[in-house]
Amino acid sequence: MSVHEVDTPALLLNLDAFERNLARLPRSLGGAKVRLRPHAKSHKCPEIAKRQIALGAVGVCCQKVSEAEAMVRGGVRNVLIANEVVGGPKLARLAALAREAQVGVCVDALPNVADLRAAAQSAGSTIDVYVEVNCGGNRCGAEPGEPVAALARAIAEGGGLRFGGLHAYQGPAQHKRTPEERADLIKQAVAKVEESLAALKRSGLTAEIITGAGTGTYPLEAASRVYNELQPGSYIFMDADYGRNLGADAKPVHEFEQSLFILATVMSHPTPQRAVVDVGLKAHSVDSGMPLVHGLPGVTYLKAADEHGVLTLADGATVKLGQKIKLVPGHCDPTVNLYDWMVCYRGDRVEALWPITARGAFY
Amino acid sequence: MSVHEVDTPALLLNLDAFERNLARLPRSLGGAKVRLRPHAKSHKCPEIAKRQIALGAVGVCCQKVSEAEAMVRGGVRNVLIANEVVGGPKLARLAALAREAQVGVCVDALPNVADLRAAAQSAGSTIDVYVEVNCGGNRCGAEPGEPVAALARAIAEGGGLRFGGLHAYQGPAQHKRTPEERADLIKQAVAKVEESLAALKRSGLTAEIITGAGTGTYPLEAASRVYNELQPGSYIFMDADYGRNLGADAKPVHEFEQSLFILATVMSHPTPQRAVVDVGLKAHSVDSGMPLVHGLPGVTYLKAADEHGVLTLADGATVKLGQKIKLVPGHCDPTVNLYDWMVCYRGDRVEALWPITARGAFY
Repeated sequence: MSVHEVDTPALLLNLDAFERNLARLPRSLGGAKVRLRPHAKSHKCPEIAKRQIALGAVGVCCQKVSEAEAMVRGGVRNVLIANEVVGGPKLARLAALAREAQVGVCVDALPNVADLRAAAQSAGSTIDVYVEVNCGGNRCGAEPGEPVAALARAIAEGGGLRFGGLHAYQGPAQHKRTPEERADLIKQAVAKVEESLAALKRSGLTAEIITGAGTGTYPLEAASRVYNELQPGSYIFMDADYGRNLGADAKPVHEFEQSLFILATVMSHPTPQRAVVDVGLKAHSVDSGMPLVHGLPGVTYLKAADEHGVLTLADGATVKLGQKIKLVPGHCDPTVNLYDWMVCYRGDRVEALWPITARGAFY
Repeated sequence: MSVHEVDTPALLLNLDAFERNLARLPRSLGGAKVRLRPHAKSHKCPEIAKRQIALGAVGVCCQKVSEAEAMVRGGVRNVLIANEVVGGPKLARLAALAREAQVGVCVDALPNVADLRAAAQSAGSTIDVYVEVNCGGNRCGAEPGEPVAALARAIAEGGGLRFGGLHAYQGPAQHKRTPEERADLIKQAVAKVEESLAALKRSGLTAEIITGAGTGTYPLEAASRVYNELQPGSYIFMDADYGRNLGADAKPVHEFEQSLFILATVMSHPTPQRAVVDVGLKAHSVDSGMPLVHGLPGVTYLKAADEHGVLTLADGATVKLGQKIKLVPGHCDPTVNLYDWMVCYRGDRVEALWPITARGAFY
């Protein structure tokens, strides 16, 4: 089947670009002594996780227990939930999952350590527990230094849990536009991790793994000599928002290619300057801005209604009623979560449908 | 089960508030000679559509063929797709559906009329076709007057199609904040419909149904003596964005109650001023702003990450780690589309789970 025969809206994956991105990440690390644990929240697809692991990743990250369950059932043997998990039913599921695979989770509060231990002991499993350090994102995470060490001591002092190391992800740094801003924030994050490592040392503890980093900053963490595990997720797909990140030459960072698209149909074209496509808020996420129209200069996705989107056409730009066009999503992760499968193509031919198994797995 | 035992994130429906909203819409119309065709894009749930029909609605609106298929399979016998449908596979499905139920669709282009006729004749069905009038929204729709009449003539002049009337929905008017702005836009919309009706008359045609209106403006269309079918959708749920619409007394319009909530768990609380919940971009849509925190003065949902949201706490405001809190979604329709079921409760007790059958039905 030709990709242009696919009914719309459809989430398309250009396999050639995707496979180049997959291989480019480990290659881009050169000789850095870091391991890769790509973030599966971007793709929610065991087919992709297994390809990342085949290229050397130790496992994947997830954000939710249900996402981790989907990955383990899909054949992944090593999952880190890169956030805190709170609440009895979720902790019981997490502890049960740790009987089937190597499972890690983050903590930033002492009562949560006790609850995790009780769940692990009740399930007869061992959970790897990482202390999350607030390294500048001001979201979750203990403050650097002694608060981190206090949590590590609590993890280490009893059964059921294994102290895995530190989780130090600087989220807001990923989308800072200039390399200087990103470098500055990661330098600060590294200092906060070092402060925490010093506090651990005073407690007689060592952190085996220092994990963090995303697609926007990972070369900085890789070069830090402090981080030894990297978690980029979006690199396989890319999106319009990452496309606005600038490199050292003030041009967009082009290390990774856009491989993810939304196929849309022009279903109304009332004036030469205006057309409407069948892709709206329920088929892409606008949290990071509107999608870009791919390969059609002068055509702009102006605004999104629930199920449709308005295009504006500059002088000389044309589309036809019924034409299928490709959009570059504004933000890949929440867009992928709107689809039940991705249509994988090579050249003009559809090659596979990959189920987005953990779509909606936010529990 | 108590509603506070439900694992999070969960989409909650307060049945008492929902049932009052359901009944309030027909009651609010008083003696106006209009019929109701609520928009099912808000709920995507045949259980709700059937309750709307039981209270007098003639059927429902949908935005997509797959949504209409879900409604018909769920027992709804009369569906209007309140948009254009373009492309062979979709038209074939639409025409097949018209063998099972009364099915309507909109047009704004002559070639689409021919394609619809071919599909209907090939399926041996009859499709009700409405001409969409651009009544000020500048999205889909033919310009008022003769362009509308030309489409109506094309519909009426052959088999397979029945000219149903005019579709004239003024989308942007729904969320204008003041009653004056909304009244002004609907006055203009009514004038554009009247211009189109005059052009139809010159062609010897009458429009049986003039359909449009949403939750923000429907009393205006009902009073227009031009519209005779209304399509509000959000009234059953409401959301933070509709909550910002003001009434004549410059207070929020309170005709309908908030019945839809997202249940979230506080899963990190690193500082007295900051907490994090397990509800982010994949569990609510931010296109119309952040959700509101329900019933906790001084607690604000500041920003959304993919799977989590940061709360800020004003002086004196408190939440606890593990506490479950209710959020009012920023925009109900795309938020509902992120869930596979809604948890319906009365008082503190869960009474039913309703599947969101047309979740993801954007084809």
